[in-house]
Amino acid sequence: MRLSSMLLPTLRESPADAEVVSHKLMVRAGLIRKVAAGIYNLLPLGLRVIQKVEGIVREEMNRAGAQEVLMPFVLPAELWRESGRWDVYGKELLRFKDRHGRDFCLGPTHEEGITDMVRGEVRSYRDLPVNLYQIQTKFRDEIRPRFGLMRGREFMMKDAYSFHATDESAEEEYQNMFDTYSRIFKRCGLAFCAVEAETGPIGGSFSHEFMVLADTGEDAIVNCSKCDYAANVERAEIKGPEGKPLRKEKQEPLKKVSTPGMKSVEEVSSFLKVEPSRLIKTLIYETDKGIVAALVRGDFEINEAKLRRMLAVEFVRLAEEETIEKITGAPMGFAGPVGLGIEIAADFSVKDMENGVTGANEADAHLTSVNPERDFKALYGDIRTAVEGDPCPRCSSPLKLRRGIEVGHIFKLGTKYSESMGATFLDEKGKERPMIMGCYGIGIGRTAAAAIEQNHDENGIIWPIPLAPFDCEILPVNVNDPETLKTAESLYVSLGEKGMEVLLDDRDERAGVKFKDADLIGIPVRVTVSSRTLEEGSVEVKQRRAADKRLVKVGDAAGEVERLLKND
Amino acid sequence: MRLSSMLLPTLRESPADAEVVSHKLMVRAGLIRKVAAGIYNLLPLGLRVIQKVEGIVREEMNRAGAQEVLMPFVLPAELWRESGRWDVYGKELLRFKDRHGRDFCLGPTHEEGITDMVRGEVRSYRDLPVNLYQIQTKFRDEIRPRFGLMRGREFMMKDAYSFHATDESAEEEYQNMFDTYSRIFKRCGLAFCAVEAETGPIGGSFSHEFMVLADTGEDAIVNCSKCDYAANVERAEIKGPEGKPLRKEKQEPLKKVSTPGMKSVEEVSSFLKVEPSRLIKTLIYETDKGIVAALVRGDFEINEAKLRRMLAVEFVRLAEEETIEKITGAPMGFAGPVGLGIEIAADFSVKDMENGVTGANEADAHLTSVNPERDFKALYGDIRTAVEGDPCPRCSSPLKLRRGIEVGHIFKLGTKYSESMGATFLDEKGKERPMIMGCYGIGIGRTAAAAIEQNHDENGIIWPIPLAPFDCEILPVNVNDPETLKTAESLYVSLGEKGMEVLLDDRDERAGVKFKDADLIGIPVRVTVSSRTLEEGSVEVKQRRAADKRLVKVGDAAGEVERLLKND
Repeated sequence: MRLSSMLLPTLRESPADAEVVSHKLMVRAGLIRKVAAGIYNLLPLGLRVIQKVEGIVREEMNRAGAQEVLMPFVLPAELWRESGRWDVYGKELLRFKDRHGRDFCLGPTHEEGITDMVRGEVRSYRDLPVNLYQIQTKFRDEIRPRFGLMRGREFMMKDAYSFHATDESAEEEYQNMFDTYSRIFKRCGLAFCAVEAETGPIGGSFSHEFMVLADTGEDAIVNCSKCDYAANVERAEIKGPEGKPLRKEKQEPLKKVSTPGMKSVEEVSSFLKVEPSRLIKTLIYETDKGIVAALVRGDFEINEAKLRRMLAVEFVRLAEEETIEKITGAPMGFAGPVGLGIEIAADFSVKDMENGVTGANEADAHLTSVNPERDFKALYGDIRTAVEGDPCPRCSSPLKLRRGIEVGHIFKLGTKYSESMGATFLDEKGKERPMIMGCYGIGIGRTAAAAIEQNHDENGIIWPIPLAPFDCEILPVNVNDPETLKTAESLYVSLGEKGMEVLLDDRDERAGVKFKDADLIGIPVRVTVSSRTLEEGSVEVKQRRAADKRLVKVGDAAGEVERLLKND
Repeated sequence: MRLSSMLLPTLRESPADAEVVSHKLMVRAGLIRKVAAGIYNLLPLGLRVIQKVEGIVREEMNRAGAQEVLMPFVLPAELWRESGRWDVYGKELLRFKDRHGRDFCLGPTHEEGITDMVRGEVRSYRDLPVNLYQIQTKFRDEIRPRFGLMRGREFMMKDAYSFHATDESAEEEYQNMFDTYSRIFKRCGLAFCAVEAETGPIGGSFSHEFMVLADTGEDAIVNCSKCDYAANVERAEIKGPEGKPLRKEKQEPLKKVSTPGMKSVEEVSSFLKVEPSRLIKTLIYETDKGIVAALVRGDFEINEAKLRRMLAVEFVRLAEEETIEKITGAPMGFAGPVGLGIEIAADFSVKDMENGVTGANEADAHLTSVNPERDFKALYGDIRTAVEGDPCPRCSSPLKLRRGIEVGHIFKLGTKYSESMGATFLDEKGKERPMIMGCYGIGIGRTAAAAIEQNHDENGIIWPIPLAPFDCEILPVNVNDPETLKTAESLYVSLGEKGMEVLLDDRDERAGVKFKDADLIGIPVRVTVSSRTLEEGSVEVKQRRAADKRLVKVGDAAGEVERLLKND
């Protein structure tokens, strides 16, 4: 394609609302333009990248035996009422009425839609399993859309749903999708890892997230330095102490000390001149089964998902100040487990603590020499968030903390939707049973954005070849030089004939502008044609990713470009 | 693909709400399923057809130099306010508020979106022309959606928009798109014609509709029996009489006759025993410039679009009964031009009439021997709808009436949107001018439906090869016969290796069911494998379109299928 006739508007400045590098570069390189908050136009260059991701996803989903379908974007409320989500899904579900006053919503996900499709057509175990997917626009009315395509309101997603007669079959397909996703992100040319993840409000029994690794990623993940264990920090298991606690110190008598106005771990530890790891942090939570206290060592953080699971409750949320005062008899910041009349859930990290420090349940006072078991009773479990160096739950080697961007998520859903919506089948014995479901998503635009987060430098994007909008860019330095233009045009033809997608920067622009744009849009291989090198019959070939340039005879240039693209 | 593992649910009965054959067959052949009024799921077989249409459209649009983009489905009201359409677009524009109370709508078309995109990026005549297209879901909240994918609420459309510095450039692109559309529908394997059309509420100066010819089509079109003139009947020009009228009869004196309760052309002509072509039908219209009477010969119909153009008014609509009584002094059904005190627009067909019959502007009375010019004055023009046999406006040969389905529409838009939304450019002299626009649509799902309307028989669909979801179906009559199954499987492999898309009906079903399904889903070539013909080492090859079957040696079958697909 000729740049002169392409709508490819590049910008020197980043848009004011762009916080992350992929958002900045997608706008600057002319891939996207904002239409409204979280709603974007895909310009020609941007759509080409999206179509590359789509193409890889489609091929691999088909290869895995999934069948492509297309459900509507506008969904009737009835389906969501059946599943029960019409009322519980938050404001992200954009609801409206049609001209006849009937309730509809814009599909943020399609569990209801697909369950309705399948229950209408599949009756027998003989028709199962089936895995159906679509590549489609979704809408989630995020309260604060940001980061460009990373967290938009309208976005493109591949969502797949599988239906099974047995748990074994569902688990087989889960593994099939796990392998398929691994192939997809590998084929996209991305460094990624699959981590154990929370299932969240979508429900289900287990799930994995596929994370593109990038220092700028939103998500914290841990992976083992030795084995292949990896998990979202939200989810990463931390083993409890084994055997009896090793007592190293003499248990001193409990003592109340004055700590006027000292509330946070930092304030108390610096005031009392003790390490934060000496403090027992006490947080008061409300849950659907009542109020509980949660304890964790002062240098760790409570993980609410784990706490929720440990308590087997529907929700946990930090109590309001009033509630805390009522329960502890003290203002916020002075809670402690000693003498507290409510259920106490403590992290394993508290179990072995000796002569710790806690709030005294009294204003401006803390207790020192607090010893678990002697001074308070608690239920122990893994309720903290993992940190760098924690032991791997599989092999005990130290865990490493990394950052990533979630681009895919697979769930074993179970029967949540098939039961509420009556998607049943007749098994071999003629008995009616709910289908067992799995669901599997990939953010298409997010994958493109994550590719940029992982692959860029200060000058612009560095596209992995499989996602690049073009394979190669030809840059004639001066299109007014007939020899330069002729060589560029003939290279354009010969590279095209080799099946490559080629961008020819045939604009009558200053060389500096063209080089800056080339770096910004990040086509993997650039061929620079200038009268200077043509004197020796050569053109300059450069990979976007590498610093070195190489002079190649004009006749060898196409072959050299091909070689670079193949070997990368 | 193996039918046994495909979601391809066929039905023996048509759905109750299906009125047209394409709707019936799309549901019965397992292509679509209804989700809500005018909103459908595309099942795997249906999506394959849609993707075939999409693929052809995309290739030809790219070949024509258009660039693909993707605009959002959810559009902010501001853009529509700028163009002025937020208030005037009817209820088909589905409007709603997001969580922050901001107004949005679902895009029924994207003139506003694209004008906004281009005005932000294009500043100079040097960046023009540009033609941008997308293949995207649209939503129009039709009051009465029907006919399946033919007139749905959510539907897929290819919409393209071009921007130009000069009229000549816009007209060149119009011709380019005309040629591109012709190639697209030809490549789809459809019989079609391009007709001159009304521009309608979208605005613009001229337009063509692309019609797939089918007896069941919604639209009436005329085409010349001799030259290549073709037009929507709404639009078809009818030449006026040339020279002085030929007077054949003696002008009798005007006479009032009693016609008690006789109002319609049929009633009056049969009561007075005169041909309908003797009657001068008089209709009273309200327009934005006042009330007018419109006359047409009794056997013709007034064409309101033509009337509107002739009067140079914004709208015309039949007057209410009250208004008619006030204007004519008589109840509805007795209006006539003689002595009527308002402007009269008469069709050319009235000009030469002699001794005609009209209402007397008096209850239960008509006038006979009415003679134009002598008895009333009128402005004459072409304001009737063409009928079979009318003379071609180009060559005067008789026009033929046909029916068609509109699948594409191209418009020269002019500056309607660029002016209201400020999409301007600087011309060669540095003067700011509005861009000249064209727009070009193709209904993707409609094209698939129209293909069925044109290509089916009583047993089901007969896909044109380019749109067929599979090229070939292999039908093993009995999968429990090892030799049959082995042959079918090996043909499945060898046809696939030749690059064909093959459907293998490997279900353990009765032969009758399989043959019925094969006819219903309409794959172009069927290879039937049965133990009976295998005894002679043969399989049966049959085209869906033709009656004859042919026995072919197993080893020659793949070649024969290939030959049939190429020669069709």
